[in-house]
Amino acid sequence: MNHFVSDAVIRRLPGYYRHLRELEAEGVSQISSKELGERMHQTPSQIRQDINCFGGFGRQGYGYHVPELKEQIRRILGLDREHTMIIIGAGSIGSAVAHYPNFVKEGFHTLALFDADKNRIGTTVNGIRVLDIHDLESFLSENIVDIAVLAVPVEAARDICDRLKACGIDAIWNFAPLDLEGENRRMTIVNVHLSDTLHILSYKMLHRETN
Amino acid sequence: MNHFVSDAVIRRLPGYYRHLRELEAEGVSQISSKELGERMHQTPSQIRQDINCFGGFGRQGYGYHVPELKEQIRRILGLDREHTMIIIGAGSIGSAVAHYPNFVKEGFHTLALFDADKNRIGTTVNGIRVLDIHDLESFLSENIVDIAVLAVPVEAARDICDRLKACGIDAIWNFAPLDLEGENRRMTIVNVHLSDTLHILSYKMLHRETN
Repeated sequence: MNHFVSDAVIRRLPGYYRHLRELEAEGVSQISSKELGERMHQTPSQIRQDINCFGGFGRQGYGYHVPELKEQIRRILGLDREHTMIIIGAGSIGSAVAHYPNFVKEGFHTLALFDADKNRIGTTVNGIRVLDIHDLESFLSENIVDIAVLAVPVEAARDICDRLKACGIDAIWNFAPLDLEGENRRMTIVNVHLSDTLHILSYKMLHRETN
Repeated sequence: MNHFVSDAVIRRLPGYYRHLRELEAEGVSQISSKELGERMHQTPSQIRQDINCFGGFGRQGYGYHVPELKEQIRRILGLDREHTMIIIGAGSIGSAVAHYPNFVKEGFHTLALFDADKNRIGTTVNGIRVLDIHDLESFLSENIVDIAVLAVPVEAARDICDRLKACGIDAIWNFAPLDLEGENRRMTIVNVHLSDTLHILSYKMLHRETN
């Protein structure tokens, strides 16, 4: 896996992981690229191409061994490791992330939430404590944190990002509605824009109507 | 805009809309494909190609007129129309959607939330009432609803989807962690997998480490 992997393939990887996990749960141990393609609404050749990017685990006339391929993709995604997280912002999105049931199973452990609102500080969300954002730096000096989840209003996002960077945090999962960037590739940032997917739905509804 | 537009272009459209809206708010009225490309981390030719898909609004030696292009993309996305929504599931994700500040500004009006939990029924989320899921059919017989937001546990998703379809709902913004499909193209469905973006972050962190 030393060669270049395109963004498009990376973007599809979690989908492979999801479908293979579902297949394994259904007791399916073997699948052809044709069957996997039908399930994922992709052509068999797209499936083979994608999977070949990571070394090619298929066997001629057999297809893929589901648990094996799932494990490979799990490792490729880094999901065989444990990650610690903090969530900045204990509002509705921060709380939704804190409640997401699969994250702990997948090794993502939320150590704390942070908020500026006195009514939230001192409470817990899904059993995780909400700390004062003023204590962010002292917390980070005492705890190893791999990922910061940014769920703050857009006005606060850049300032918090700078504070996290100054503390050595180098991975951000950003829900604030702006594109944060990893300056000089020092930070790894994934920006999530919830409303983008609603806009795509709106586009598809309109397109359907006019055809 | 009658010709084929690829999924990749559609997926990038909301990003264009976001950046152009930001530029307009910053008072920028004119931008070249080079400058827009730098801002969006895309090549100028990619920018030109994408925008040409929708009819080509650029002028040689001038670039794009920001408010005009933004308005065009807004119309292409269907955001110049009003949409009514209901949210199924008043848990953390349903509540996050109900609280999202921009949706009302963009013409997405949430009429009600629905839940099966007696403790939630009768309460309000951001001023929007939470109704009993048993009353879904009667509500839909009396109200015009364009979009249903699905924020229910995975076990309940298919059943709710069938009930919505039986009531004539044909657009679903799905947050339940499975891929729902529009059977026979009768329904327009966009599936959002929150954890996919976290998995991509994990991949990028791992990839960074090993390089």
